[in-house]
Amino acid sequence: MKEIAGGVCAPIGFMAGGIWCGIKAQSQKRDLALIYSEKSCTASAVFTTNRVKAASIIVSMEHIAAGKLHAIIANSGNANACTGAAGLDAAQRMAALAADEFVINPRHVAVASTGVIGVPLPIAAIENSIGALANSLRGDEAGHAAALEAIMTTDTRKKEVSVEIEIGGLPVRIGGMAKGSGMIHPNMATMLCFLTTDAAISRELLDKSLHRAVSRSFNRLTVDGDTSTNDMVVVMANGASGIPAITEEDDGYELFAGALEACCVKLVRAMARDGEGATKLVTVTVNGTDDEATAETLAKSIASSSLVKTACFGADANWGRILCAMGYSGAEFDPLQTTVAFKSTAGEITVFKNGEPFPFYEEDAKNILSQEEIEIIITIGNENNAVSVWGCDLTYDYVKINGDYRS
Amino acid sequence: MKEIAGGVCAPIGFMAGGIWCGIKAQSQKRDLALIYSEKSCTASAVFTTNRVKAASIIVSMEHIAAGKLHAIIANSGNANACTGAAGLDAAQRMAALAADEFVINPRHVAVASTGVIGVPLPIAAIENSIGALANSLRGDEAGHAAALEAIMTTDTRKKEVSVEIEIGGLPVRIGGMAKGSGMIHPNMATMLCFLTTDAAISRELLDKSLHRAVSRSFNRLTVDGDTSTNDMVVVMANGASGIPAITEEDDGYELFAGALEACCVKLVRAMARDGEGATKLVTVTVNGTDDEATAETLAKSIASSSLVKTACFGADANWGRILCAMGYSGAEFDPLQTTVAFKSTAGEITVFKNGEPFPFYEEDAKNILSQEEIEIIITIGNENNAVSVWGCDLTYDYVKINGDYRS
Repeated sequence: MKEIAGGVCAPIGFMAGGIWCGIKAQSQKRDLALIYSEKSCTASAVFTTNRVKAASIIVSMEHIAAGKLHAIIANSGNANACTGAAGLDAAQRMAALAADEFVINPRHVAVASTGVIGVPLPIAAIENSIGALANSLRGDEAGHAAALEAIMTTDTRKKEVSVEIEIGGLPVRIGGMAKGSGMIHPNMATMLCFLTTDAAISRELLDKSLHRAVSRSFNRLTVDGDTSTNDMVVVMANGASGIPAITEEDDGYELFAGALEACCVKLVRAMARDGEGATKLVTVTVNGTDDEATAETLAKSIASSSLVKTACFGADANWGRILCAMGYSGAEFDPLQTTVAFKSTAGEITVFKNGEPFPFYEEDAKNILSQEEIEIIITIGNENNAVSVWGCDLTYDYVKINGDYRS
Repeated sequence: MKEIAGGVCAPIGFMAGGIWCGIKAQSQKRDLALIYSEKSCTASAVFTTNRVKAASIIVSMEHIAAGKLHAIIANSGNANACTGAAGLDAAQRMAALAADEFVINPRHVAVASTGVIGVPLPIAAIENSIGALANSLRGDEAGHAAALEAIMTTDTRKKEVSVEIEIGGLPVRIGGMAKGSGMIHPNMATMLCFLTTDAAISRELLDKSLHRAVSRSFNRLTVDGDTSTNDMVVVMANGASGIPAITEEDDGYELFAGALEACCVKLVRAMARDGEGATKLVTVTVNGTDDEATAETLAKSIASSSLVKTACFGADANWGRILCAMGYSGAEFDPLQTTVAFKSTAGEITVFKNGEPFPFYEEDAKNILSQEEIEIIITIGNENNAVSVWGCDLTYDYVKINGDYRS
């Protein structure tokens, strides 16, 4: 697998674009994005589990049910959530507008929104600009970049990826973009991820590979506990690479699924790193539990503890908080078999071993924990079955950003 | 029920004291507390559910099993947690030292510790001072105050209560003290609560009333998600009021159980108000669900959302975050039947009604949310079955206090 340029336009046959249509009235930044494939795509998606769902989620869930997509239309600056029947009409209208431009079935268009909740979506602004949006489509890096800009809200970094793998001697590409951060954005303004690929793959195996990738990436991004009303991950596969369709769980499938997972993990690490107010990417790895679920529960409990997160901010080797978070996670483990270590580019240090504090120099620990990417490594018994989750530190700026966003 | 003075010494027959024995080496503040009843007490307790348990918890769980206590000995400045076999010996030694002073059964002594994790408890300091501790006992407000001081760590406010009720024409008193805050203290340094009463009551009904009180108070205190290794709530009933023992769930039991719950709620509100870095007590009340559990789940999800907590800090009427927190709580509710209001001494305002935003003046909302005690009121359908939980806002100071505690 090698990294290549192009983002969602790296796979053959995809185009993307982004413009300002007027939703972000004040900033006048790009606020309307389109990703389009001339060929109809096999498609799969994962949606927020929040009981309060944005209109875009409701519409996209319906549209994706048949497993076919031609396009994704997305706006930023307005979440179109808690907006009642008018909001639902607006989301359907977005799909219809895109479909009319390309003479495709509106049910083959996914709709995404991100921004402020409870404010009516100015659908007229989208209607007036749909031609300009279609004209902005390009099949290169610039098209990808414009679309990515148009889905960003308070993101401070771009989250993008594109890779190439070989399946049966033929090159296959996967590209992706995401918005959102390790901590969910103001007004829960959503995690969105759009993935494209020129692989040919059955609906069933695309579903399976996406669910596996999401469960090991986005579902292991520990946020501040708040799950957005608008979250979605969508993948479109147009088959333009020319490989024979993947229809069995063979080597080709494993290559594709592994690459899709790697793309998602790269986007997730970028999201954690861009957590609101975050100064550090914190990876928590748990080794040696009997099953993956236990390791994941322990790792998430550590990575989402406010006390651990503030200690990471302060570069404080406070292992007591880590053990405590493991203790209340609900997962079974033996503290007497447990080792805790910290690692970064500045080195690695063990601070707790087999149930007792392990002597270390505070200065070494401070140095290790002062880096921009740090890892908390838990080993229970042995080093098998490593599971990693990703998070970030909790800082003054988190409070500042979220303390007064709307007004 | 009327409030009276005296704290844990308000009930007849209880004495308390507190001294500095040397554990808090630097600050030289009181660090060793004793609560003692000459008469043997019926006793009950609730302990942390954290899988990692401090030595004091393990010893006290054993001792309380028989339902009898004469005394509680507690230290601050050291949690005696993750300290191995030596820690367990030290906790047992604490009980034995107190028992020797009063020639009582060491198994009738409960032990509590709070402070830094993973540092050996300096048991010699306690041994050297046990005589002075016994001599410090007083049966009045000053004894209570000294003991309360000796269990505090970073607490900025005293949490204390004492009330008098009448059962069958006779006065009965309940007193209490607590330490800890809405957000759990650095190094998870524990929520401790000691309650005394001169009621006469069977072990079974004391258990029942304590569990009911804790489930409606301490278990509805939404902290930062971190549950300490050292938490405990203990109640001692010595029967000195002279009332006939409560052995059935009659009117006398209801009076007692209600007063015990009110005492716990008062302590919990004080703890939330003293949350680390908190500027506000936030009460979340949910009305109208079919059952108490659903209301509690919704209320806790709101009160523990970092986004809601920062909005409270910023006095930002961000109802979208509230609906979002309800949506991911896992509880079933109908957003179209849901109303959200904010209330404080400055007034009450509805911001969301029956599934749609409800117009309000931002200035009014800001004013209401700028008070020191604010309430978020959710009504689903009707106003029955109100359940309240207590929390606080998330502030810069929370990050500051927890970012670098140990060093």
